[in-house]
Amino acid sequence: MSIQSTVRKDWDYLQAAVELSREFATNAVERDREGGNAFAELEKLRESGLLKLNIPTEFGGFGKPWSAVMQVIREFAKVDGSFAHLFGYHCLNMTIVHLTGTPEQAARLYTETANNNWFWGNANNSLDRRVVGRENGDHYVLNGIKGFTSGSPYADILLISFRDQSNEDIFHRAVIPAERQGVIVHNDWDAIGQRQTGSGTLSYQDAIVHKSELIDETYRKGTVLSTFPPILAQLVLSNLFVGSAQGAIAEAAQYTRTQSRPWVTSGVERANEDPIIIRQYGELGIELEAAVSLVDRAIVQVDKAYAQGFDMTAEERGEAGYIVTTANVFSGNASLNICSRVFEVMGARASANKYGFDRFWRNVRTHTLHNPAEYKVLTAGHYVLNGQLPRPGIFS
Amino acid sequence: MSIQSTVRKDWDYLQAAVELSREFATNAVERDREGGNAFAELEKLRESGLLKLNIPTEFGGFGKPWSAVMQVIREFAKVDGSFAHLFGYHCLNMTIVHLTGTPEQAARLYTETANNNWFWGNANNSLDRRVVGRENGDHYVLNGIKGFTSGSPYADILLISFRDQSNEDIFHRAVIPAERQGVIVHNDWDAIGQRQTGSGTLSYQDAIVHKSELIDETYRKGTVLSTFPPILAQLVLSNLFVGSAQGAIAEAAQYTRTQSRPWVTSGVERANEDPIIIRQYGELGIELEAAVSLVDRAIVQVDKAYAQGFDMTAEERGEAGYIVTTANVFSGNASLNICSRVFEVMGARASANKYGFDRFWRNVRTHTLHNPAEYKVLTAGHYVLNGQLPRPGIFS
Amino acid sequence: MSIQSTVRKDWDYLQAAVELSREFATNAVERDREGGNAFAELEKLRESGLLKLNIPTEFGGFGKPWSAVMQVIREFAKVDGSFAHLFGYHCLNMTIVHLTGTPEQAARLYTETANNNWFWGNANNSLDRRVVGRENGDHYVLNGIKGFTSGSPYADILLISFRDQSNEDIFHRAVIPAERQGVIVHNDWDAIGQRQTGSGTLSYQDAIVHKSELIDETYRKGTVLSTFPPILAQLVLSNLFVGSAQGAIAEAAQYTRTQSRPWVTSGVERANEDPIIIRQYGELGIELEAAVSLVDRAIVQVDKAYAQGFDMTAEERGEAGYIVTTANVFSGNASLNICSRVFEVMGARASANKYGFDRFWRNVRTHTLHNPAEYKVLTAGHYVLNGQLPRPGIFS
Amino acid sequence: MSIQSTVRKDWDYLQAAVELSREFATNAVERDREGGNAFAELEKLRESGLLKLNIPTEFGGFGKPWSAVMQVIREFAKVDGSFAHLFGYHCLNMTIVHLTGTPEQAARLYTETANNNWFWGNANNSLDRRVVGRENGDHYVLNGIKGFTSGSPYADILLISFRDQSNEDIFHRAVIPAERQGVIVHNDWDAIGQRQTGSGTLSYQDAIVHKSELIDETYRKGTVLSTFPPILAQLVLSNLFVGSAQGAIAEAAQYTRTQSRPWVTSGVERANEDPIIIRQYGELGIELEAAVSLVDRAIVQVDKAYAQGFDMTAEERGEAGYIVTTANVFSGNASLNICSRVFEVMGARASANKYGFDRFWRNVRTHTLHNPAEYKVLTAGHYVLNGQLPRPGIFS
Repeated sequence: MSIQSTVRKDWDYLQAAVELSREFATNAVERDREGGNAFAELEKLRESGLLKLNIPTEFGGFGKPWSAVMQVIREFAKVDGSFAHLFGYHCLNMTIVHLTGTPEQAARLYTETANNNWFWGNANNSLDRRVVGRENGDHYVLNGIKGFTSGSPYADILLISFRDQSNEDIFHRAVIPAERQGVIVHNDWDAIGQRQTGSGTLSYQDAIVHKSELIDETYRKGTVLSTFPPILAQLVLSNLFVGSAQGAIAEAAQYTRTQSRPWVTSGVERANEDPIIIRQYGELGIELEAAVSLVDRAIVQVDKAYAQGFDMTAEERGEAGYIVTTANVFSGNASLNICSRVFEVMGARASANKYGFDRFWRNVRTHTLHNPAEYKVLTAGHYVLNGQLPRPGIFS
Repeated sequence: MSIQSTVRKDWDYLQAAVELSREFATNAVERDREGGNAFAELEKLRESGLLKLNIPTEFGGFGKPWSAVMQVIREFAKVDGSFAHLFGYHCLNMTIVHLTGTPEQAARLYTETANNNWFWGNANNSLDRRVVGRENGDHYVLNGIKGFTSGSPYADILLISFRDQSNEDIFHRAVIPAERQGVIVHNDWDAIGQRQTGSGTLSYQDAIVHKSELIDETYRKGTVLSTFPPILAQLVLSNLFVGSAQGAIAEAAQYTRTQSRPWVTSGVERANEDPIIIRQYGELGIELEAAVSLVDRAIVQVDKAYAQGFDMTAEERGEAGYIVTTANVFSGNASLNICSRVFEVMGARASANKYGFDRFWRNVRTHTLHNPAEYKVLTAGHYVLNGQLPRPGIFS
Repeated sequence: MSIQSTVRKDWDYLQAAVELSREFATNAVERDREGGNAFAELEKLRESGLLKLNIPTEFGGFGKPWSAVMQVIREFAKVDGSFAHLFGYHCLNMTIVHLTGTPEQAARLYTETANNNWFWGNANNSLDRRVVGRENGDHYVLNGIKGFTSGSPYADILLISFRDQSNEDIFHRAVIPAERQGVIVHNDWDAIGQRQTGSGTLSYQDAIVHKSELIDETYRKGTVLSTFPPILAQLVLSNLFVGSAQGAIAEAAQYTRTQSRPWVTSGVERANEDPIIIRQYGELGIELEAAVSLVDRAIVQVDKAYAQGFDMTAEERGEAGYIVTTANVFSGNASLNICSRVFEVMGARASANKYGFDRFWRNVRTHTLHNPAEYKVLTAGHYVLNGQLPRPGIFS
Repeated sequence: MSIQSTVRKDWDYLQAAVELSREFATNAVERDREGGNAFAELEKLRESGLLKLNIPTEFGGFGKPWSAVMQVIREFAKVDGSFAHLFGYHCLNMTIVHLTGTPEQAARLYTETANNNWFWGNANNSLDRRVVGRENGDHYVLNGIKGFTSGSPYADILLISFRDQSNEDIFHRAVIPAERQGVIVHNDWDAIGQRQTGSGTLSYQDAIVHKSELIDETYRKGTVLSTFPPILAQLVLSNLFVGSAQGAIAEAAQYTRTQSRPWVTSGVERANEDPIIIRQYGELGIELEAAVSLVDRAIVQVDKAYAQGFDMTAEERGEAGYIVTTANVFSGNASLNICSRVFEVMGARASANKYGFDRFWRNVRTHTLHNPAEYKVLTAGHYVLNGQLPRPGIFS
């Protein structure tokens, strides 16, 4: 495990992301086809130093705000939705400890993550209640299976959740090393998109979780910031959507300019001079810019609210939450439409598998299902009609 | 080669198509994943007798109108877009001889097709001008390569086209046995959708085409009916779009009823009781019914115009052409939207590859590129604004 | 009151509607601006004989099916949404007696309507519960006010409804002469559209309704046909929507061809040669044809179901109801879009009030609110997802 | 003519606009119905000091950037599209002298406008070439008629344009007092929307324009900033669109909360608790926020480019122009949709004329025709596909 990229003062995260994105692009189409894991690419991500992007500087990170994280996500999504997701949730998972646990635990985990250049995986899906922990002295013994454990095959460390056997209603969160005995990563993710996120199942066979590894949610209970993670998660997704649409349009434009043939009745020499095609690019661009602008506005608002720390008010959270909600729905729909329509401006030969142009739609289609857009429309509506801010919940 | 299904008075083509469709469904998802060819399924199609569906009864076929062909296409498309295409173009390819060649050639080819239960492939793409024939006494010697040769790997007989070496502007059409020496089917189709249509390249190495195999287009020149094939082709596609949307909704509804979990904040016990999801099905259904109705109307108009035979007037052709144009554009867009949106009413787990739900979108996306919808919108606009009927052309 | 147009064997109802529509067109824009009533036009409608269009022949009418009524509605809506509505509800109001009352009453009212060439108005809105009748021997004494009483200022005879003072839950329907003492037509309709439908309020001041005038709903109770009126009402509206869209496009195309100036950068001599504008007409036409096709399909299904008479099964009703529901929602949305977008193909000067081009949007916008489209989407969704046919109700 | 509001240090322009907007609201619906002029309201605008909002401080104005102007436009548009337009074009018209004429003329006109609290009208439409000036010594004598002269009935001073009789291709611009002899304001604007903008015709009968009143366009020729007005004009419109949508939603929400009745099958007590309606508000809000965000981004970019003054580069102009183009198209379409759809969340009674809810759609529909959106889509497409920045022209 390389920890080459120690703190550099002059470090330019966006440039690093752009370069990495260029590397990812060289084999993104094949990797998408193969699915499974991209360990080599994860190492490149690790070497870039970006895994420490949002770790506060006092713990050895770069201390960048969410806007920085989001820009990197978008950059990755332009070519590789899986790495956009892996990176975004890595940043988010460790933040959850910060927002919901004790300062000590957060400090320790931030520090160790920075020192070891860890990658965080996720086995934290609250909707899946199949993992049960039996209390036993200073630890819990876990059994059961968890789905949608994104990043688990790549993880050094895992954010997990489980039900307490003694009480159906108690849900514990904990952070454990991925190599913990009894933790089995099944690496069985095989979906139509986001194919290298490793979002399959993870099971426990008498795996031990020490009580000291539990996140003590009582400490931050009642603070507004502790309810902020779902908003961050939605913003991660929104940026993945926008980046995917940007990537799809960029690849399409490149193709139209260099490979498309003008339509037989177009009367032009080159496809990129055809007003019919130019017009379609105009429509795609207009929809894209609206999505970019709304997501950018959401990013600014999230940065601003997040900067309040544990003093964040319910209203600051709510207003950020409302804009993020609208951004998530709008960018998801816009991206689906754009990633589907780009084929129309390239022509029939662009359907060849070798180009992998459909991966954008497949990635966005997969990721927009993460939590239903229709329920987010309701959330937005409560605010627009009745001024009711989004209520803290698992997905809002 | 089985020719078991000789003319039966009591033969119910739609029932045959439904049964065959049910068989196709058993492995459609795997076959889509593998791509390549489905020879076993083609044999089933052959055995069903459907290959003779639109061969006039006097030549040993079932003499069914285009409405029957379209219903079968739609039925197949509900589970397998490739077979919808293969079947539709089989019917169309042999018709092209009928509409554009001499009665004798049509009679002979219809009869042989019926007697031998032949399947017709297609190497007729007019936009690809790379195949050249050199005249040599009573035959031409062909060299070059042709793309988008749908059905060629399965074909007993091929509708082909080539340029005359002596004159750039002369384009010949001919019908030859698929096994003709010098004809190489590359079977290299690997697209995001319509994966078993075998629409790859076919090349010629000094392949001989006898002049008697040429379609003599002078015979029917000037008749309106001889310009009808592009309208039929667009109608084939429209039915593929509609059938795909019907299949996507049917599979989704089945999944929602039996496998979807109710959303955590829905307050219902079962996903199919959730008003949010019911509403979305309503939207999908409304768009589908509009597409079905418009395509059905186009079918009726095509049957009626086609029944005029070589007496068809330019106005009859034009009005059918206009409605088919609108049906093609509308059903293509509706189907793309429906096949993309069905995921939203199933939930995140429906993105698993094993279900293959994305094949509907991939099939429609691939097939809607066949000829650009935007140009067809122009064709429709000329009629709406200026009363100008679609002009006979390669794609209108 | 003219009853000139007695039954003619050779009578061509559609031609009559077209001619009348042409007359309506001469002052439709001014009449829309003025609002209020169009008594002169109503007399023309009366003279045309069309008021008897759907009265069975045995009672002196023309015995035409609903498809005929719908064609006339569509024809009127092309220029005058108010008359489309007045005519449609006239036909519907008298039918309600037929479907829900005794054969004797239906026969008597059909006959008198035919003999006197009556026009039926409507004070039957079930959602407005403000009119109360106090039983008094052989009659009821009515007081209160009713809204949305379309056609009331023009009416010879009125279909009315009121609550029974003795029991909140009992709702009576009756048919009374419009000139009944104590019936006050306020003629206060002033809406953004459908401005000459006279859909304002009507109040009762101790107005007497004889028990013999009540519709005896027990007679047909339990028959499916007696629950059919809401489906007919939705179909009336759907045809108004489609006709309005047809009219809007026709007027726009006429304007573009004769008055629009080509855009400064278009490079064409005349606006109707501009591909940008032609393309937009194509889009409008495609959406229109989809709406027309779906509404036409609904009409056919309604005619077929209605022809079963009181033997109509719940399934026949339900399937007609489903298609009518989809047709209503789709045609409403399509028409709103078309009637709003036509301005774009005409140019800035078309916003002049003198043309009255906005009346199409205002009419459709007003009429689509009659009952909420969103609830009809739910109705469609129940069928698509769960196979549940629309349940008989006030609006489904 | 009041010039009460001289420069105040503590002056809060947005608050002033909000207050004025509240006043406009009190009779906006009636004024819309009546059309014609709103001189009393113009005086209120004058008294507010806002007419000097963007006059540089050195000439006695408030020196606010375009972002301030745009906020005021948006504020007015929430209740009164006409005043949004009058104010926006007032600011724009005087700026045109600044950007395209000599510094001296700009300084003089800015100063006089500030000193006299003038309102600028517009008779500058370049597409209308009917006004001709005959040179005569030190002046031109003008004859002819000009259309779309917004603000002319209210104007103290007019920006005008005319052709030079000696040369078809020479187009002069000038600034003259509105009371100049021979200038006849016809005050004949009667359109479906923007009814109090006074955008009718203005004619000249031997009206004299002194050569000193001409804008000397040679001075700034070649600078990028001199080509900036069309971008500002498009931004004015975009803000009018966004403000109209905001106003429409605000009025609708107020109505739904206080006046709408819950739908009969909704199962809720109050309309604003109905998930079906809440969901629709969510959709409206999401589309609105996207439009707001994109227009806000365009504003920021315009402020930034404008701040470069006559050093503005072609690229700065082009990038601002691209974003403004996308913002204009997107906000226009979004606003049309929103202003049409708000009726659906209020119910049938909201179609009553007394509420005037349709004025939003009518205003936006009228104003979006100002220059065709479809041509702007092309402009955007040239950039997206080919990186070609919008070319300076009359409307881009």
